[in-house]
Amino acid sequence: MLVTHLPDVRYLCGFTGSNAYLAITANRAAMFTDGRYTTQARQETSGARVVIAAKSARDEACRWLASGGVEHCAFDPGSTTVTELALYRKALSPGHRGFFRPLAESLVPHLRQIKDQDELRLMKQAAHLGVELFHELLPHLQPGVPETTVAAQLEHSARLRGAEAMSFDTIVASGARSALPHGRATSQRLPRKGFLTLDFGVILNGYCSDMTRTIFLGQPTRRERFTYDAVREAQQAAVAAVKPGASCGEVDEAARSVLRKAGLAEYFTHSTGHGVGLEIHEAPRIAADQSQSLLPGMVVTIEPGVYIAGHFGIRIEDMVAVRPEGGQVLTPASTGWTQL
Amino acid sequence: MLVTHLPDVRYLCGFTGSNAYLAITANRAAMFTDGRYTTQARQETSGARVVIAAKSARDEACRWLASGGVEHCAFDPGSTTVTELALYRKALSPGHRGFFRPLAESLVPHLRQIKDQDELRLMKQAAHLGVELFHELLPHLQPGVPETTVAAQLEHSARLRGAEAMSFDTIVASGARSALPHGRATSQRLPRKGFLTLDFGVILNGYCSDMTRTIFLGQPTRRERFTYDAVREAQQAAVAAVKPGASCGEVDEAARSVLRKAGLAEYFTHSTGHGVGLEIHEAPRIAADQSQSLLPGMVVTIEPGVYIAGHFGIRIEDMVAVRPEGGQVLTPASTGWTQL
Repeated sequence: MLVTHLPDVRYLCGFTGSNAYLAITANRAAMFTDGRYTTQARQETSGARVVIAAKSARDEACRWLASGGVEHCAFDPGSTTVTELALYRKALSPGHRGFFRPLAESLVPHLRQIKDQDELRLMKQAAHLGVELFHELLPHLQPGVPETTVAAQLEHSARLRGAEAMSFDTIVASGARSALPHGRATSQRLPRKGFLTLDFGVILNGYCSDMTRTIFLGQPTRRERFTYDAVREAQQAAVAAVKPGASCGEVDEAARSVLRKAGLAEYFTHSTGHGVGLEIHEAPRIAADQSQSLLPGMVVTIEPGVYIAGHFGIRIEDMVAVRPEGGQVLTPASTGWTQL
Repeated sequence: MLVTHLPDVRYLCGFTGSNAYLAITANRAAMFTDGRYTTQARQETSGARVVIAAKSARDEACRWLASGGVEHCAFDPGSTTVTELALYRKALSPGHRGFFRPLAESLVPHLRQIKDQDELRLMKQAAHLGVELFHELLPHLQPGVPETTVAAQLEHSARLRGAEAMSFDTIVASGARSALPHGRATSQRLPRKGFLTLDFGVILNGYCSDMTRTIFLGQPTRRERFTYDAVREAQQAAVAAVKPGASCGEVDEAARSVLRKAGLAEYFTHSTGHGVGLEIHEAPRIAADQSQSLLPGMVVTIEPGVYIAGHFGIRIEDMVAVRPEGGQVLTPASTGWTQL
């Protein structure tokens, strides 16, 4: 098998560089990279021999595989571009036609869904850092502060507490902007009155956290308060539905049915959640059409939202680990109505 | 043509969301996304009709293309995975066999190499922000400060000055870690004596900056000083070689030949630079085997380095715009020996 998706490479052998071709046979494994990573590759890699390619790490990996008595080499079609595949083939002589064969399913991402005890510990640490950052931020939120300043403060604290990076562009969406599910921080200032959605994550020791809270500045209308309570109820229902054996579609439906009863289903315009780990978006998808069952060791987000264009939006998101006894929330910050 | 690589979509129509299928025929263009982006897509997109797909943006885009009297649809094999292509084909009836055809070359990334006046203005702004941040940081660098604190300070200032994000994980590599070309900031503290490499970039209005400076703490040995001067001379030689018509290989050779004469060629383990723009790594590549000619409007990095494992490393990097009259450095911070 030839593994090239960088999070997959890291997962299997520990190497974190930006150029890596991990070649695996029944008996051997070799990780091919380039001269920029001579020292780093030897420090980080375990379970595979490190090869610093003189010219092309790709070509050398392909030739190493084809010369070892191997009949066929699997690759992940979900992370291999059409051009990459053509280059694999070009690296070998024409006699090797048919050597590379796509996996029917993405194998390593499939394995990565189930986190082991070490990974769960790291994910809990990342998630807890997120919660601490949120609590630290709360007293600084007030009308007039630009969204970008809120993001800057959060990200600065994350760094000082050891985060390698944020796991995605921080979302700070206030007032009518809260109706944008992906409203990255802008120069807009927090309003005297309105919702503020904070959706952010850190990367700590390689693992991503992800959480969302929506708070209110000033006095809400009845409709605003009613909608918040409905989103919260939907979120809690989906969290409660997380357990081994539950299908992803059932978990999605647990949130969606609450919003349907509240007459808000049409404003819930995305799926309920996604797996998270070394990448911010991993399998499984918590969506209506997904029949896949949850298994112990999976970590997923549960994040229903309601977005009323031009008016306001609300999303509440936790990370939830699937344990044998049910779902365990990794982001224990209150989801109750919070008013500043 | 079906355009799916997100920076290409943004370049062509302005949309910045994370799910986009831009379908273009001779007379029409439509940008397909999902319900999370209903408001944002309409705000950002120009030159293409916005379609919010009920189910799959991909499937709807493919069907729209195939139903419009179009004979063939081009796609970029460099940014389309084997799985994506299979899904394009699956979205159409079997009668459309052969409808999707790979471009011989990545067309939109090719166009993106040449920046227009508006883009050059934005890139200059991003590059200048980088220079300001570097100057602001200098007085805070002293022995004992953790590398992560240096990165945190830099990134916080970047955010407060309007950057959307950093363009890559900030590299702060001190002491023997400076020999790691990609040494992301760790908890290691700045030493009393040794090199400190800072390689960082901001994203401002969508465009990436990229610069590297290597400074010295304490008193250098003769070898350290000699090596720095050689890297600097190599960098200046390559910057001077940037002009319309020069080949990328010639520019690389301008840097490499200086280090060869200094007996350091074996420690220069990467290529001299790369294009930069909406993405941190774009065409062209400034490398030994690249015959491509530089053209006015290209913006490239020039970043030779020397890395002596276990001892020290040095890299100096500027962004250089190719103007009709020659190269214009966009990152005007001194590259002279800087000792703290």
